Amino acid sequence: MTFDHADEHLDDQMIMIQANIDDMNPEHCTYVMDLLFEQGANDVIWIPIIMKKGRPGLQLQVLTDHALLEKLETIIFRETTTLGLRYFATTVHRLARAFVKVQTQWGEMTVKTGYHAGELVQYAPEFKECEQVAKLQQIPLKQVYDEVRLQFTLIHVPSDT
Amino acid sequence: MTFDHADEHLDDQMIMIQANIDDMNPEHCTYVMDLLFEQGANDVIWIPIIMKKGRPGLQLQVLTDHALLEKLETIIFRETTTLGLRYFATTVHRLARAFVKVQTQWGEMTVKTGYHAGELVQYAPEFKECEQVAKLQQIPLKQVYDEVRLQFTLIHVPSDT
Amino acid sequence: MTFDHADEHLDDQMIMIQANIDDMNPEHCTYVMDLLFEQGANDVIWIPIIMKKGRPGLQLQVLTDHALLEKLETIIFRETTTLGLRYFATTVHRLARAFVKVQTQWGEMTVKTGYHAGELVQYAPEFKECEQVAKLQQIPLKQVYDEVRLQFTLIHVPSDT
Amino acid sequence: MTFDHADEHLDDQMIMIQANIDDMNPEHCTYVMDLLFEQGANDVIWIPIIMKKGRPGLQLQVLTDHALLEKLETIIFRETTTLGLRYFATTVHRLARAFVKVQTQWGEMTVKTGYHAGELVQYAPEFKECEQVAKLQQIPLKQVYDEVRLQFTLIHVPSDT
Amino acid sequence: MTFDHADEHLDDQMIMIQANIDDMNPEHCTYVMDLLFEQGANDVIWIPIIMKKGRPGLQLQVLTDHALLEKLETIIFRETTTLGLRYFATTVHRLARAFVKVQTQWGEMTVKTGYHAGELVQYAPEFKECEQVAKLQQIPLKQVYDEVRLQFTLIHVPSDT
Amino acid sequence: MTFDHADEHLDDQMIMIQANIDDMNPEHCTYVMDLLFEQGANDVIWIPIIMKKGRPGLQLQVLTDHALLEKLETIIFRETTTLGLRYFATTVHRLARAFVKVQTQWGEMTVKTGYHAGELVQYAPEFKECEQVAKLQQIPLKQVYDEVRLQFTLIHVPSDT
Repeated sequence: MTFDHADEHLDDQMIMIQANIDDMNPEHCTYVMDLLFEQGANDVIWIPIIMKKGRPGLQLQVLTDHALLEKLETIIFRETTTLGLRYFATTVHRLARAFVKVQTQWGEMTVKTGYHAGELVQYAPEFKECEQVAKLQQIPLKQVYDEVRLQFTLIHVPSDT
Repeated sequence: MTFDHADEHLDDQMIMIQANIDDMNPEHCTYVMDLLFEQGANDVIWIPIIMKKGRPGLQLQVLTDHALLEKLETIIFRETTTLGLRYFATTVHRLARAFVKVQTQWGEMTVKTGYHAGELVQYAPEFKECEQVAKLQQIPLKQVYDEVRLQFTLIHVPSDT
Repeated sequence: MTFDHADEHLDDQMIMIQANIDDMNPEHCTYVMDLLFEQGANDVIWIPIIMKKGRPGLQLQVLTDHALLEKLETIIFRETTTLGLRYFATTVHRLARAFVKVQTQWGEMTVKTGYHAGELVQYAPEFKECEQVAKLQQIPLKQVYDEVRLQFTLIHVPSDT
Repeated sequence: MTFDHADEHLDDQMIMIQANIDDMNPEHCTYVMDLLFEQGANDVIWIPIIMKKGRPGLQLQVLTDHALLEKLETIIFRETTTLGLRYFATTVHRLARAFVKVQTQWGEMTVKTGYHAGELVQYAPEFKECEQVAKLQQIPLKQVYDEVRLQFTLIHVPSDT
Repeated sequence: MTFDHADEHLDDQMIMIQANIDDMNPEHCTYVMDLLFEQGANDVIWIPIIMKKGRPGLQLQVLTDHALLEKLETIIFRETTTLGLRYFATTVHRLARAFVKVQTQWGEMTVKTGYHAGELVQYAPEFKECEQVAKLQQIPLKQVYDEVRLQFTLIHVPSDT
Repeated sequence: MTFDHADEHLDDQMIMIQANIDDMNPEHCTYVMDLLFEQGANDVIWIPIIMKKGRPGLQLQVLTDHALLEKLETIIFRETTTLGLRYFATTVHRLARAFVKVQTQWGEMTVKTGYHAGELVQYAPEFKECEQVAKLQQIPLKQVYDEVRLQFTLIHVPSDT
């Protein structure tokens, strides 16, 4: 079991950046998102919104720690068309996370787990691995995903909970 | 009482055009919409969608009668960035519509009404008139809107329905 | 095993109704939806859209067989604020469906299954039953849902697929 | 007249929780929402968003006072699939609210009212009561809703405002 | 070159107001938005959301400086149907902005530019001017928009960047 | 100049498939989309919708020619959780398309063009190529995109249009 975050914790030095954009080619959105993740953003989303004069636009939300704020702002200004952005102080609450290996008919696969107050509350197969197996085996993705969950459950989740 | 459509009717020669667009400056959307309405479209909407590679895009839907199809297609090809569009045969069911005048404290105002099978089913103050009164009188728009509905109701809607 | 639709089949006499609405109290939307389902609609959804002058609106989509068209249209005209609607001929492809009982630690529970070309392609716990168990037992809904799936999978899904 | 909040007031000890979720069965969303309301959340909404790799996801927003933060976080971790959440300090401004009874043809019904700086700014029929009357009387919900507003207006809203 | 904001700067005295609304005629949304802009709001958007009991609603977001908070709150309470709102402290980062004139075949037109850390990062034709030319000349808006950008680029953007 | 579709044309043998889904892990959506494109779908989108009991769901829309209908239906049934789908006959109008090479400071790059009634109405840089240059050169994507458009415009778009 490899712990990603060994312990559940609060991080109260986080920043949420927002920008509302109505004049950018939306084809560029996933590129900007990927770049922000690569440069260290904790989370990046786009939200469909309605802006001035009823124009369809998009709100960019980027979660980052304080140290990366300037760097990510520069990316946003260079890669999007916004003339301004805003940010908010926020506290992030992260579960303890561990990656667990399970045996399946397609070999060893990984399940990401999350613990809250010592209790297992989340477990989800690693999406990329499932995708690879589904493609290789030519079987439905949901079948792979379910099987990995099943194997995890049989071993790690007490049945009488 | 002026009837817009004297009678409730079906029109089975209508066309619904659709185009999915992910590489157009959304600032232009309301302009395109206005132009299509000016040139005779019956209805025009934009729907936020998710397109290839997870890109945020917009679906344009235009309702038109068959005679205007080519003209509106040309506008869509010239004013948006789409390389193709699709259309569907559709039947439109339109209520009988009449514009009714009601007296209010701000003078005579208009209510648009709709009749289904001879029964009054819709009545709504003309939005533009309410907007003008609200601005001029510096009172909330919803108050004007409600007052016009109230005056219509007192006279035209039987209380024991 | 009770079959809901004994056989996978096509129904080419179906109708899709659409109405775009920008002046209705959205609080009423779920009521209208429930009413349409009660009166026999096969499917009812609301889609957030952008309408004339950039107003946020909602598109109502109702799937129905031809026999119910008039009745559902009357409900739409009486319960929403629309002055018109449109409809499209459509073909519905429905899987063979069966409800299967599985034993769980909370007693017998139901799984809805779907078959395409004789192959089991869908299985999902009955949502209402899971909800009741989750409330009664004070355990997470997802845990109940997963457990019902697990029990179904252990018995009904061949592991070497 | 029963006052719910006797006075308009600010509450600067409130918290807004957010979580972005892309791997949860959306069928569970209303259950989670109901549970959070039952446990004391002041407001709960879901927003359609676009997440990493262009996946359609949902942002959960929960408004709560500080005292309930831990309890609601535990519900979110147990009932959704998120591995983390974030929260923001916020100030809530609540109107003075009162429930007013009005006489209608269907008996006494309730209107919820809101006062800002001593001025009546909101009045809305209690939705549940309107729904019950509409079902019982088999008349359109909007007709009931309008009638209750009308009776309130005739008595409580000065006509020369 | 006229500078709108002579210098790129941070403003840490800003406020973001939010209200979730599920019982307001959406036809009024653009009116409310226009009014808030007229009274000094820095930004106003509407976001489609899902509220209590699965009702489609809208979240209003208004960005303002602290001095206008009370005035804009009063507009929101009078013009929408909300019984409460919430606000958050936020910091706004605004680029240095300048309006640049360029020569085009339709005369002198304006480009809005933005500078981050002294670097030109944004340039966009003034939308209204492009719209006027497109209408007058009966040519596609995107063609006008592109031509203005082109003329700006040829003179102001170094080709070997 | 390589023509993709040598001629603008109508294809009246096309099909639009729709399925409304509220119980599928949305993490799988882009996988399903990719698979449908790989197997020959002409277009695939996801639309955020509100389904039965107010649940947030997604509508899948797939455009295909008639020959692929059965194959794509099987993918939808195997890879999503739907128990049914519907389809509509539709006519697709496709522009004549050609790929044009332009010289830029980063070498030869491609522009996709579209012709309606013999007139050039669309031209857009190939997104993937721009993305590669942006990453390699570490410059903003929009700068690359603009430069490719500029070079195309200087040679292929008459300035006095």
